[in-house]
Amino acid sequence: MRFLVIGGDAAGMSAASRAKRNLPDLDVTVLEQTGDVSYSACGMPYNIAVPERVMDDLVVRKAEVFRSKQGIDLRLGRKAVAIDVHSRKVIHVGKDGDSEETYYDRLLVATGARPVIPDIPGVSLPGVLALKSLDDGRALKEYIAGNNVRKAIIIGMGYIGLEMAEALHARGIRVEMIKPSKRFIPYLPPEMSDVVSSELTEKGIVLHFGGEIEAIEKTSEGLTLKTSLGPLDCNMVLVSVGVAPNSEIARDANISLGPNSAIAVDKRLRTSNPNIFAAGDCADAFHVVTGKRVWIPLALRANRAGWAVADNLTGDNVELPGIAGSAVFKALDMQVARTGLSLDEALKEGFDAVDEVIKSRSRAHAHQGNQTIHVQLIADRKTRKLLGAAMVGREGCAHRINSVAVALHAGMKVDEFFQTDMAYAPPFSPVWDPLLTAANQLLKKL
Amino acid sequence: MRFLVIGGDAAGMSAASRAKRNLPDLDVTVLEQTGDVSYSACGMPYNIAVPERVMDDLVVRKAEVFRSKQGIDLRLGRKAVAIDVHSRKVIHVGKDGDSEETYYDRLLVATGARPVIPDIPGVSLPGVLALKSLDDGRALKEYIAGNNVRKAIIIGMGYIGLEMAEALHARGIRVEMIKPSKRFIPYLPPEMSDVVSSELTEKGIVLHFGGEIEAIEKTSEGLTLKTSLGPLDCNMVLVSVGVAPNSEIARDANISLGPNSAIAVDKRLRTSNPNIFAAGDCADAFHVVTGKRVWIPLALRANRAGWAVADNLTGDNVELPGIAGSAVFKALDMQVARTGLSLDEALKEGFDAVDEVIKSRSRAHAHQGNQTIHVQLIADRKTRKLLGAAMVGREGCAHRINSVAVALHAGMKVDEFFQTDMAYAPPFSPVWDPLLTAANQLLKKL
Repeated sequence: MRFLVIGGDAAGMSAASRAKRNLPDLDVTVLEQTGDVSYSACGMPYNIAVPERVMDDLVVRKAEVFRSKQGIDLRLGRKAVAIDVHSRKVIHVGKDGDSEETYYDRLLVATGARPVIPDIPGVSLPGVLALKSLDDGRALKEYIAGNNVRKAIIIGMGYIGLEMAEALHARGIRVEMIKPSKRFIPYLPPEMSDVVSSELTEKGIVLHFGGEIEAIEKTSEGLTLKTSLGPLDCNMVLVSVGVAPNSEIARDANISLGPNSAIAVDKRLRTSNPNIFAAGDCADAFHVVTGKRVWIPLALRANRAGWAVADNLTGDNVELPGIAGSAVFKALDMQVARTGLSLDEALKEGFDAVDEVIKSRSRAHAHQGNQTIHVQLIADRKTRKLLGAAMVGREGCAHRINSVAVALHAGMKVDEFFQTDMAYAPPFSPVWDPLLTAANQLLKKL
Repeated sequence: MRFLVIGGDAAGMSAASRAKRNLPDLDVTVLEQTGDVSYSACGMPYNIAVPERVMDDLVVRKAEVFRSKQGIDLRLGRKAVAIDVHSRKVIHVGKDGDSEETYYDRLLVATGARPVIPDIPGVSLPGVLALKSLDDGRALKEYIAGNNVRKAIIIGMGYIGLEMAEALHARGIRVEMIKPSKRFIPYLPPEMSDVVSSELTEKGIVLHFGGEIEAIEKTSEGLTLKTSLGPLDCNMVLVSVGVAPNSEIARDANISLGPNSAIAVDKRLRTSNPNIFAAGDCADAFHVVTGKRVWIPLALRANRAGWAVADNLTGDNVELPGIAGSAVFKALDMQVARTGLSLDEALKEGFDAVDEVIKSRSRAHAHQGNQTIHVQLIADRKTRKLLGAAMVGREGCAHRINSVAVALHAGMKVDEFFQTDMAYAPPFSPVWDPLLTAANQLLKKL
């Protein structure tokens, strides 16, 4: 039996490796369009921040290891272009256009996502870059090294944009960011979003809100962005306005799509075609709070879904309960973490949602090094259940958010969460953890 | 109606303040034997570490504020010596031996705990100190300042002893620690306990295991400990072998005691006497994993219990579900965190307990500043439920442990915990959080 995998990143290689471990006789073939597999894409900004580091530091396991040690037929530089579901074949092409077909008994579509490139005149000019693959990272690093980049403009203010702002800032590059909306981090309450934007602007990163990009043009000095706010000169442009699922190959094979045109999968990661699974950034998931399909492409889910595909393929029956959308990122010295629904999302989903935003401290009263922590907790008045949370602060947010994630998975009421016994010591927390203080305040509104 | 409180620390003052807020006309009287109320006792080691800081930095709210702003009749320097449950009076004495009686309608016993002072010849010598009250902290700090302390011996290796080892070490004092047992941190698996002891010994703190103290004697140079391992010279001895509940006043009033002779309370914090509550370090609690009474005196529970007493007194019906025993402390640069049952405790409680100890990383693959994190997860084979966890590492343990605490409160199975959606970003975690990796490994043993 052949298990064919399209895409050799987190979901694809997790599935391939685990399937081979589960069933060593299985024929496992992976088609990967780039030359890289199994790398930490999320680590790229931190690698780019340090000129001396090479992108290959981010490779977790080399292609040769998958081949020789694990017996996976890993085919690099092969781009899958079509799935023939009737004859169970994937048609794929090489760099020089040569086409080939590979038969499958079971197929995993793990094609990931791609950066959205807006349709702006000049978006293909040299020096206008995006960041998704390791090759993108290499190109970006080479461009910085070779072009004396002193000023960069980032289009978009999502978490990759913000991580890259930190990376470029660390390299002494002046960074400006621009987006059409007036809201900085739209899922945060304004006072918490402001904390993060202040951190950036105080450290010299310029934020332009409400700016539409009309064109990018080459100048004698570098590049200029024509925007509704006026022209912005720079040496480099990073386009970071979001990602879209690479689901076209599935759609063209009549496989059902879900929200954001991601590939719809059930809890066992099966698509609408009985022989085809999908996993990773190209596929959707069920949200543990709403029970509905949602597309939130994140690394942990990709890895987890890859494993579940392998287990289901080799005889287990693994159902993934779903995701809470837990995420964290660093913007300079600020940690931004969230899980579950934002207040807007909760209201849109029809919950009788109410939130509380509190300011607490990262350490005990009078402990040196104390920092402010902002917490938003969101709950449903009708059921008193927690719906989501967000945290912002210089320390103590990244891991705390997981307590709320666990509570969301357990369907906890705010009352129950408030009674949980959290660890306290002066260097790490006030006696009442900021999350408990937020829960206590939120209870008064329920 | 008079609400009388014995003890003006965390539980007592939380109850007094909240009762007065709930019911402004209530007569709230507090008897406190020392001159201090409402201070962060846990902050003392960190205050002692810095010569310039004064102990009063740790006072959260001054006595005058409780009196003038909150209308609490706060009586300092009054030591309660007996409860007359028939005439509902508490007999208390002042510093000069003057005795007085105060009537109560409802009484809260919040007498806290005291350091256990072993019966060793010489234990009352000057320079042999213990740490519990703010006055103890002042005495210790004054002793260090006035006696050119170059070497201290700490008897005991509990968390207060370890925090004090760090504090004294930070002041350039040579620290040796001694205990009769051969095990360093008994609730940790040996490999995790060893990580912490190595941290201490590498930084110059000497640990003596299996050493019985026979006597403490004054020498011309300072003090000497006669021990079963030979004599140990020093300038100061800190006795830190544990604490005992101040429950005698309750016992003498025929109030029922629970484990470790702590005052037995129900989930509403009521003692066996219908007019008397108990809260804080003198009282017991129900353990959320076993459902049984347990005595684990910690600050969060004291505060929470104080509030619950006030609410129940003024008409609410608040039941505290219980504690998980979540705790964290810092030993030099090492974080040690735990929640729930240890493996030994779980086996003693009759669970079909099994544990897994894993080594993971605090940050993503190839991220700079990465540290090792050790995780122990414990579960019951029969129900597959989580029973407890412990973590050791230089970063990322203190807040992570709370995710397990929430899972214990929710009665989660390891399978469910493994599926929780935790936040990932390279500076904060591997893609698979160390807790998830531990859960995955533990599942293989169930």
